Amino acid sequence: MKEVKDQLKVGVIGLGRIGKVHLENLVYRIPEAMVVAASTPSDTGYDFAKNLGIKEIYQDSLKVIQHADIEAVILCGPTNTHLPHIKAAAKAGKHIFCEKPLELTVKKIERIHKMVNKAKVKLQVGFNRRFDPNFAAVQQQVSAGKIGDPHILKITSRDPAPPPIKFIKVSGGLFMDMTIHDFDMARFIVGSEVVEVFAKAAVRVDKAIGKAGDIDTAVITLKFSNGCLAVIDNSRQAVYGYDQRLEIFGSKGMSKIENTYADTQQFYDKKGSHRGLPYNFFMDRYTESYCKEMSAFINSVKNNQLIIGGVHDALMATKIAIAANESVRKNKPVKIK
Amino acid sequence: MKEVKDQLKVGVIGLGRIGKVHLENLVYRIPEAMVVAASTPSDTGYDFAKNLGIKEIYQDSLKVIQHADIEAVILCGPTNTHLPHIKAAAKAGKHIFCEKPLELTVKKIERIHKMVNKAKVKLQVGFNRRFDPNFAAVQQQVSAGKIGDPHILKITSRDPAPPPIKFIKVSGGLFMDMTIHDFDMARFIVGSEVVEVFAKAAVRVDKAIGKAGDIDTAVITLKFSNGCLAVIDNSRQAVYGYDQRLEIFGSKGMSKIENTYADTQQFYDKKGSHRGLPYNFFMDRYTESYCKEMSAFINSVKNNQLIIGGVHDALMATKIAIAANESVRKNKPVKIK
Amino acid sequence: MKEVKDQLKVGVIGLGRIGKVHLENLVYRIPEAMVVAASTPSDTGYDFAKNLGIKEIYQDSLKVIQHADIEAVILCGPTNTHLPHIKAAAKAGKHIFCEKPLELTVKKIERIHKMVNKAKVKLQVGFNRRFDPNFAAVQQQVSAGKIGDPHILKITSRDPAPPPIKFIKVSGGLFMDMTIHDFDMARFIVGSEVVEVFAKAAVRVDKAIGKAGDIDTAVITLKFSNGCLAVIDNSRQAVYGYDQRLEIFGSKGMSKIENTYADTQQFYDKKGSHRGLPYNFFMDRYTESYCKEMSAFINSVKNNQLIIGGVHDALMATKIAIAANESVRKNKPVKIK
Amino acid sequence: MKEVKDQLKVGVIGLGRIGKVHLENLVYRIPEAMVVAASTPSDTGYDFAKNLGIKEIYQDSLKVIQHADIEAVILCGPTNTHLPHIKAAAKAGKHIFCEKPLELTVKKIERIHKMVNKAKVKLQVGFNRRFDPNFAAVQQQVSAGKIGDPHILKITSRDPAPPPIKFIKVSGGLFMDMTIHDFDMARFIVGSEVVEVFAKAAVRVDKAIGKAGDIDTAVITLKFSNGCLAVIDNSRQAVYGYDQRLEIFGSKGMSKIENTYADTQQFYDKKGSHRGLPYNFFMDRYTESYCKEMSAFINSVKNNQLIIGGVHDALMATKIAIAANESVRKNKPVKIK
Repeated sequence: MKEVKDQLKVGVIGLGRIGKVHLENLVYRIPEAMVVAASTPSDTGYDFAKNLGIKEIYQDSLKVIQHADIEAVILCGPTNTHLPHIKAAAKAGKHIFCEKPLELTVKKIERIHKMVNKAKVKLQVGFNRRFDPNFAAVQQQVSAGKIGDPHILKITSRDPAPPPIKFIKVSGGLFMDMTIHDFDMARFIVGSEVVEVFAKAAVRVDKAIGKAGDIDTAVITLKFSNGCLAVIDNSRQAVYGYDQRLEIFGSKGMSKIENTYADTQQFYDKKGSHRGLPYNFFMDRYTESYCKEMSAFINSVKNNQLIIGGVHDALMATKIAIAANESVRKNKPVKIK
Repeated sequence: MKEVKDQLKVGVIGLGRIGKVHLENLVYRIPEAMVVAASTPSDTGYDFAKNLGIKEIYQDSLKVIQHADIEAVILCGPTNTHLPHIKAAAKAGKHIFCEKPLELTVKKIERIHKMVNKAKVKLQVGFNRRFDPNFAAVQQQVSAGKIGDPHILKITSRDPAPPPIKFIKVSGGLFMDMTIHDFDMARFIVGSEVVEVFAKAAVRVDKAIGKAGDIDTAVITLKFSNGCLAVIDNSRQAVYGYDQRLEIFGSKGMSKIENTYADTQQFYDKKGSHRGLPYNFFMDRYTESYCKEMSAFINSVKNNQLIIGGVHDALMATKIAIAANESVRKNKPVKIK
Repeated sequence: MKEVKDQLKVGVIGLGRIGKVHLENLVYRIPEAMVVAASTPSDTGYDFAKNLGIKEIYQDSLKVIQHADIEAVILCGPTNTHLPHIKAAAKAGKHIFCEKPLELTVKKIERIHKMVNKAKVKLQVGFNRRFDPNFAAVQQQVSAGKIGDPHILKITSRDPAPPPIKFIKVSGGLFMDMTIHDFDMARFIVGSEVVEVFAKAAVRVDKAIGKAGDIDTAVITLKFSNGCLAVIDNSRQAVYGYDQRLEIFGSKGMSKIENTYADTQQFYDKKGSHRGLPYNFFMDRYTESYCKEMSAFINSVKNNQLIIGGVHDALMATKIAIAANESVRKNKPVKIK
Repeated sequence: MKEVKDQLKVGVIGLGRIGKVHLENLVYRIPEAMVVAASTPSDTGYDFAKNLGIKEIYQDSLKVIQHADIEAVILCGPTNTHLPHIKAAAKAGKHIFCEKPLELTVKKIERIHKMVNKAKVKLQVGFNRRFDPNFAAVQQQVSAGKIGDPHILKITSRDPAPPPIKFIKVSGGLFMDMTIHDFDMARFIVGSEVVEVFAKAAVRVDKAIGKAGDIDTAVITLKFSNGCLAVIDNSRQAVYGYDQRLEIFGSKGMSKIENTYADTQQFYDKKGSHRGLPYNFFMDRYTESYCKEMSAFINSVKNNQLIIGGVHDALMATKIAIAANESVRKNKPVKIK
């Protein structure tokens, strides 16, 4: 449809919620890419791709991964398909964008690391928040030296409502499912590695979450190798909506972001002034970031540039999450190797 | 491409800056519409449409307007083509979306009014700001009675920089080119007709604007038939960016919007706290409104619903602009019939 | 009580609401002044002064004005006492701080002007808002050239609730009673004289105000001799509290102030975020300004420095108010000589 | 000077910086109190008291504490005088307001507790921040149940600049000198006792602070007996000024305060919008709180009401500070008995 010269030919694996987002962005908003084929086991996925003009739609993912015309694959299948799909893609010499979580154990992520290194293919993990204009603006301030040496990072990350208990049970737990974004963000913003974690957690939102073996409220302290301290606070339920704020304080200043809203309207009456809720769902809050991360991936591959958010980043975030769980269990700080 | 049942079949006339915006929105973001054909005199317009998958692309606008399959036309040609295109479309029984300004004189707009009434076709004028989420939120508050009786409306509308003098000369002047948006917005928000205008204007930004017979700074007072007063202030140049604010004050409260920004980042240093510039160009500031206005048009036609922003609205905004010019010339308030 | 060397010896005339404020500030917060005597016809005034340690308290104002030890008088009696008290003070060679309105007619203010010029005494009028830290900060920005040439000034000035009808009847009307502060503020901020006024007014808040011959809602356009335009909007009733905002826009930038609050607390719940009401009464909103204006007066007298807000300023504000009334009556702009 | 009936007769011990604040507030702003006498070893203290009209000024504190007419004493001497003065006051049956820190060890504070209990006198400690309108507004929201069960408290408390190294050496360390305010605030807001502390600290601002045996940057996690978690972050140097913010998040909502400023002025130019620094010194930031805490003390004594911030509160804040120091030393969470 688009006739940009030298489009990167890609295939999309999996057309669930996030697969659809990526496919639509690739078709409509990223002229440097050309979607050659997609795979999906579902009828709704098939219809969605067909409506977008995708010519080749398979049930078998390997037909996409091994497609002769395809240079890069976008992996949006269930987490347990990531490792086999990456293996096949690496073998076929295809560059890889893989949704998070890349994998759930350190061991498997390390295996992935070896595979892609050996195959000399790029792998970008879907750390979309790094591409959110707000977080990205802070990261630029920090890396440009505007705040001086970073001393204290604060991340508030609270969901509008907990997921179903059924999901909680298979989620890997709060730290692996939800805080992992914040762990990645902390590393991204501070630009240094976490060396120690202390996590304090509680069940405050819903006892059923506790019965399912998880926690719903947490305060986590991180220490970085450059000496910066960080604190993340999480809740599974902020009644006033999706709460995603961050500030970083350093020797020369502070950079800070607030929540985002669909409009700026404020209402004033006898009782005072009132504003509505912020964007209440990650698909609204982070819409732009999904397009930007995919665009970055396509262009990194085309121009052979550094990936933003790769296997090492997934590995480190996973290690921190595991350490946080251990810290809660033992009630003491845990070192990260 | 999209296979929504009962898509409205449309044709797009003119593929300049705004025509491209509408075409892209129709193709990518409005599943209820199907673009059958487009017309454009330019190569860049042709390439743009071709890349978007448009099959029929003509140089002659009439081939689109009179196209047997087409139910509605989107008129994005130069202002002097609006009247003949509307005439042709009305004759052909096609519904019409027409970019603003619809026409420049009361007489011609009244002729258009008659044409479309007689032909029983709908005509929506491109008052995109009515669909901006910020202004729309205020309008909903007001029409829902939240602020009670409206007493005072304030609109600040300042451009980041003046257009070229060449454009100024043919623009119809500040009130007809720029304030006309604010006149329409005032009527939209207050929900009543303007009965009197007093305008005070000056050349403060650039003397060349004055030499070209125009003004660049203005304060305009409106009186509405429901008794509400309004004040609009304009400048052709706000060095801190595109300034688009509004507040309406009434017997029960006030509703107010602020400028919009690409991100929420704030920086704090020795001198204080700092935020960057707001969206600095109408294509960024009002992006969402263009998609929403077109979607509204498509759905109004499909479901035979009331148009938001029609010929009457264009007529009234034009009358107010003309009265404002007369008010400046005579330095006295001017009644609107 | 205080033993600062070279204290200015002052007398306070009138111990109503504002007289008490000045007396308390003089006694407690302005070490450069010494209150020698006060006069008041009332018991509560007497008790108030006595509790503050004032030794000489008279019923007869002349005993204070003509008191041999007193160098300056603070006139807080009813408006109709201002002229005779100023006359007596000028005759006695005493410097004068006089509450506003200085007088209600141009003729009388001009007589006062002559008196004090002839007597070579200083006269400061109680334009306390000039000393409010918010307005003062804007004025400093403007006079320092930060905003460049001033193009548009906007003042919003709305009371939380109308005064009793009884008061309205003797108030001199909205422009003379309430907007006069804004007229002075406009001149203070712009640093230029008003040459033309156009005022649009209405009765929207309470019909009884209309029956009493006054208006309760107004939008006033001013033109300044330096070319700046200004717009003031007034209401006798903002249900969300005392609304006192200002912004000035110029060739290099904009300076802007917001309402002030007793605290910064914001509450977030299911419906959104909420803040309480701003300071709701001029005695709270402008507390600091009363102390600063009196301190400025004392120090201007002691150090023989220029007065901020003198007879000329009262005269000009009065002329503008009179012109605004004429403009409403005739529905046309009125020139100021 | 003031003749309010039934004034509480008080004496002030110590006229350093904070003693002067309390004396001036007592004389000028708290009509329910009458200062009978003061004691001070210094000439400037003597002159200050004399200028305020205090009749009896002694060098010997006991002359004030044991003065027959005095019902309550305000202890503003050096920390090492607190215990002996309290002992003397308790013995003499005088109510006590004592500046913080009450004492530096748990043992001594427990002795004080016994003394005042036995003597049946009230003792209020100078936890002035509890009376700051911002913090107080949050506490009222929480205690009124507006936020539901408290889940997470966040306090940011950063000084504009570190004190001299000389002071640091005798300060008792960051937690005892600076964070102790935040520990008290945390208990005040959450309304529950701290049961565990984990503190992470660093020297980031100035190595000389480290050499002096102290830290300048800290992140402290608290667990409360009601299950609430809290995090406090401290720095000895925020280049953008005194940073005092707090938010508390619960099952029904969040209450939050921001920094306070001398004015609301914002400036907009080519680079964006700019605001100046917040109140940069605790005497400016907390001015109002000093008056309110003293007024509360006087009225608690007069009306035999509960003290806000007493010996138990000082004891608990001290225990938390000691535990925080131990936590840093041992790098593990420490329980509070």
